[in-house]
Amino acid sequence: MAGNLHTLLRDLQRRKARERRGLVVAEGRRLVEDAFEAGARVVAMLVADDAARGAGAGLVEEASRRGLRAEILPRREFNALADTETPSGVLAVVEWQPLSLDRVQRPDAGGCRALVIDGVQDPGNVGTMIRSAFALGAWLTVALDGTADVRGPKVVRSSMGAVFRHQIATATFEEWCAYADREGIASWVAGGEGEPVNALEPLTESIALVVGNEGQGARAAWSGRRHRSITVPMRAGAESLNAAVATGILLFELSRARR
Amino acid sequence: MAGNLHTLLRDLQRRKARERRGLVVAEGRRLVEDAFEAGARVVAMLVADDAARGAGAGLVEEASRRGLRAEILPRREFNALADTETPSGVLAVVEWQPLSLDRVQRPDAGGCRALVIDGVQDPGNVGTMIRSAFALGAWLTVALDGTADVRGPKVVRSSMGAVFRHQIATATFEEWCAYADREGIASWVAGGEGEPVNALEPLTESIALVVGNEGQGARAAWSGRRHRSITVPMRAGAESLNAAVATGILLFELSRARR
Repeated sequence: MAGNLHTLLRDLQRRKARERRGLVVAEGRRLVEDAFEAGARVVAMLVADDAARGAGAGLVEEASRRGLRAEILPRREFNALADTETPSGVLAVVEWQPLSLDRVQRPDAGGCRALVIDGVQDPGNVGTMIRSAFALGAWLTVALDGTADVRGPKVVRSSMGAVFRHQIATATFEEWCAYADREGIASWVAGGEGEPVNALEPLTESIALVVGNEGQGARAAWSGRRHRSITVPMRAGAESLNAAVATGILLFELSRARR
Repeated sequence: MAGNLHTLLRDLQRRKARERRGLVVAEGRRLVEDAFEAGARVVAMLVADDAARGAGAGLVEEASRRGLRAEILPRREFNALADTETPSGVLAVVEWQPLSLDRVQRPDAGGCRALVIDGVQDPGNVGTMIRSAFALGAWLTVALDGTADVRGPKVVRSSMGAVFRHQIATATFEEWCAYADREGIASWVAGGEGEPVNALEPLTESIALVVGNEGQGARAAWSGRRHRSITVPMRAGAESLNAAVATGILLFELSRARR
């Protein structure tokens, strides 16, 4: 059993395996608590022996209440299976996968906001963007092809559990465009050139904020699609903001402008 | 000479040595270019042989125009001295140190904004906050005691060169409070409880936004000082934003509210 779990965890380091199995690894005490609280289906739990006697004891009990027996193993073995540099000693394998666009549930209210991530490479940035989208009231985050795998352990961690509470979809650029056209969602692409986000008229339409790659921005194909460009105005001489910071500011400003 | 440089670089991995020598390491082609452009004094440059023949050739020339001979060494040796996991092949040692508060130059205009970092531990977050403060028009960033070393290589990198263009000071909590009192700067502490930043009256006073530790927030001692609490309002059920994202939103909102 323990051997099988080791094999599973190693397998889940590969994107293809995460996709095929519909499983992700949630590492860290807080994150595993979040998965439980959010009602996610935890299929396995691994705890380092020292954590099982200490800060992780409550989680071992929680798992047992849910009919799941936590696998307790020596700290050294735990660390070898963990993804972080200083593992807290608790990890869980959770049933989770992003939705396809035909499965997302759109809220009735007009003026809703979605986030579209177009080619952001850094998993920490992608997870942080998902965390912001959830906290700032977006109803959906879509990761387009070319974006870091939303099932990756660092995305799940950086999202601080938001992956378990927020609708996340994956789609190709074409699929997203078809969906947005059908649903009447306007695409607003973040970039260096664009309307300053603090000077927007009150918004009534449904919007998707499109955030592109850290270096190159969103894909060139947007220029062939109807869209609006927006930007965070900056001091002269300043080059750019961190992609996740800019996304947070834009999402917050779009929620302010909503009327 | 090359041997001395190796010794220096290893020495600069220690906080004490960076402080004593007044030097920081800027790693990455873009960052070294930024240091040159910002007029920072580059005292040594190290380039991997493949980079010297390729993308780093221009920087080697630039250094030479400035009377600095770049040290070119085999890629394997370069990587052993580099701080990043996938080094670009260029690094520079730059004269740089944070100011003390009696050396900062305050702008004449009223309503100016400063950022005070109170105990943020993650160097990437600290650097990203400095980058945001500069880009969003703050005139000063202060790192209080208990904050990650602003001279650290990851802070310098995450700031994307903003350390070379922006006033950065270090101070103890008491020093900052005395300075702020004397200068008539109001401290606004970011936290979970507080006035929503999007509902502020137009601002005329000079403000310092105080951002605390990722987990615990700003130090408890603020409660004994006159201050105002502000927050980024979030969706019910959402726990928090990434500290650097929240800082970006608050700085941007404070600049919007300025009048």
